[in-house]
Amino acid sequence: MGIPAAIAIDFGGTNIRAALVTAEGSLLHHVSTLTRVEEGVQAVVERMIDLAEQVIAASGAGPEIPVGVVAPGPLDPDAGIIYFGPNLPGWRNVPLRAMLAERLGRRIVIGNDGNGAALGKVMFGAARGCRHLIHVMIGTGFGSGIISHGQLIEGYRGLGAEVGHLSVNPDGPRCHCGGIGCLEAYVSGWALARDGEALAHSGRSEALRRAAAGGPVTAELVTAVAQAGDAAARSIFENAGRALAVGLAGLVNVFNPELIVIGGGVAQAGDLLLDPLKRWLPHYAITYIVDQVRILPSALGTDAGIYGAAARAFLVTGESPPGVVRLD
Amino acid sequence: MGIPAAIAIDFGGTNIRAALVTAEGSLLHHVSTLTRVEEGVQAVVERMIDLAEQVIAASGAGPEIPVGVVAPGPLDPDAGIIYFGPNLPGWRNVPLRAMLAERLGRRIVIGNDGNGAALGKVMFGAARGCRHLIHVMIGTGFGSGIISHGQLIEGYRGLGAEVGHLSVNPDGPRCHCGGIGCLEAYVSGWALARDGEALAHSGRSEALRRAAAGGPVTAELVTAVAQAGDAAARSIFENAGRALAVGLAGLVNVFNPELIVIGGGVAQAGDLLLDPLKRWLPHYAITYIVDQVRILPSALGTDAGIYGAAARAFLVTGESPPGVVRLD
Repeated sequence: MGIPAAIAIDFGGTNIRAALVTAEGSLLHHVSTLTRVEEGVQAVVERMIDLAEQVIAASGAGPEIPVGVVAPGPLDPDAGIIYFGPNLPGWRNVPLRAMLAERLGRRIVIGNDGNGAALGKVMFGAARGCRHLIHVMIGTGFGSGIISHGQLIEGYRGLGAEVGHLSVNPDGPRCHCGGIGCLEAYVSGWALARDGEALAHSGRSEALRRAAAGGPVTAELVTAVAQAGDAAARSIFENAGRALAVGLAGLVNVFNPELIVIGGGVAQAGDLLLDPLKRWLPHYAITYIVDQVRILPSALGTDAGIYGAAARAFLVTGESPPGVVRLD
Repeated sequence: MGIPAAIAIDFGGTNIRAALVTAEGSLLHHVSTLTRVEEGVQAVVERMIDLAEQVIAASGAGPEIPVGVVAPGPLDPDAGIIYFGPNLPGWRNVPLRAMLAERLGRRIVIGNDGNGAALGKVMFGAARGCRHLIHVMIGTGFGSGIISHGQLIEGYRGLGAEVGHLSVNPDGPRCHCGGIGCLEAYVSGWALARDGEALAHSGRSEALRRAAAGGPVTAELVTAVAQAGDAAARSIFENAGRALAVGLAGLVNVFNPELIVIGGGVAQAGDLLLDPLKRWLPHYAITYIVDQVRILPSALGTDAGIYGAAARAFLVTGESPPGVVRLD
């Protein structure tokens, strides 16, 4: 007999969200709070427990209902330990699963947020039933998850699949990760803001300088000014779209995927990004492989994390749609 | 009950080899012939049948013993059809499995040679038991196969994993595949020969010009002259090793592999290639992921194809070591 639902926690650097997700994909009893990571590990874990208890109380979920958690940064899904988080100061080798299990008295399942989002898409979302998926979420950073032959690609120690850190140019810009020419250093909120800032200060985009009005140039500003037709701002997206094409082409050649889903805030720029992507992709991918892949934009869903956390809980407890997707 | 052996055929553009491979990995009754692809599809298929029949006669293999075939180029392993071959003129949508099955009267299993070599390595070779392997074979071209979570990564239509066509530089040299800056356009026999030819003609390597003695510059010549200490020839390997680092770093970030095995003729250059590879890899891969991977050179084995063909036959008939590797 299957479990009817899972409690899902989406643990991010800014917010923590929780909800009950049913096996049919209904999202119920949604609650959220600010993470306030500056208050330390214990305080943040308390907030997760509090949200989970709110969902349990509201839903009447019995102790057989597991809790799925997605978290940022490198973690060990088997051991349930968060190694560290780029946006989680103070988090080093935190045994989050054990901490939650002790207090919540039920099964806890932990996974990376990018991988979770891919699982959520094939179990509940736009890629339902797809066994060969590349999922990228381009927001402030570049998140990703890959499912190949129905297997979530996490790797030897659960640290894959870091698509955002594929180098697409050996002499490209430095990435926050320390790498050179990473996809994220071309296609992310911070990269667009960096390029927009440079444009505004160089005098090459009067429109962008005016829009910033003396404040910082954000990815949203670059997008708005590009959508209004500013050629210089559009060139930022041309550059980003070409870099995205180089990186995704490599993955197409390696994975021969059925579907690429592109979500996240930056993806809301739509054709500004997708047009150069689609134009450049055939230059860097093998024709007979790239011809088979569909590219779908995904609506910006703040629920991607919650569905991902629930998907992992269903999978680990053996409740996935049979044959579609599996964990190791 | 397991099958005790498989008949293995390694179908290449230059040679066809066949042998009996036992479940324990013994290679028996080895026979081979030139492919003579210019004589047409039917003549080549006849040669495969002839070799298989020689192995059957010599070994006394009963009709329950399957035949595994590895072949170059894109093919459909499920349908047993070779789409085409870069080095196989005249081969277009050839139903090789059906043609062999009709004449040999036993089960036939067909797969790509790069993927087969990876399977052979985890079942019989240097990566025995490894569930997270990146295997590359750098010869005239750049062959590859990836096993992740014990799953051979072939993709939606069986056309992966084409590691040699990862673009490692969006403004790099043209590849034979039509792509730009492919790994193979930096690290392969033909790329080394191209770079060596340019060096010899530009007068930047007197040693290479002398070694070529008016003839063509080959990858073997570039290797020999570099090994003798010629700085210009060594710079070709530095460039190739850096490109290999960019490409493999991307795969490390995506797959979090346990092991990278590098084989093939060009890999015989050893430290000439491996030193720059290992030096550049950390610049393009995430530290905590690349720290976990071992890189092993593999002896140039002309038997890699035969073991690969046998491995696939064992797998399809359900005879793999349980839990180690699987096909879809």
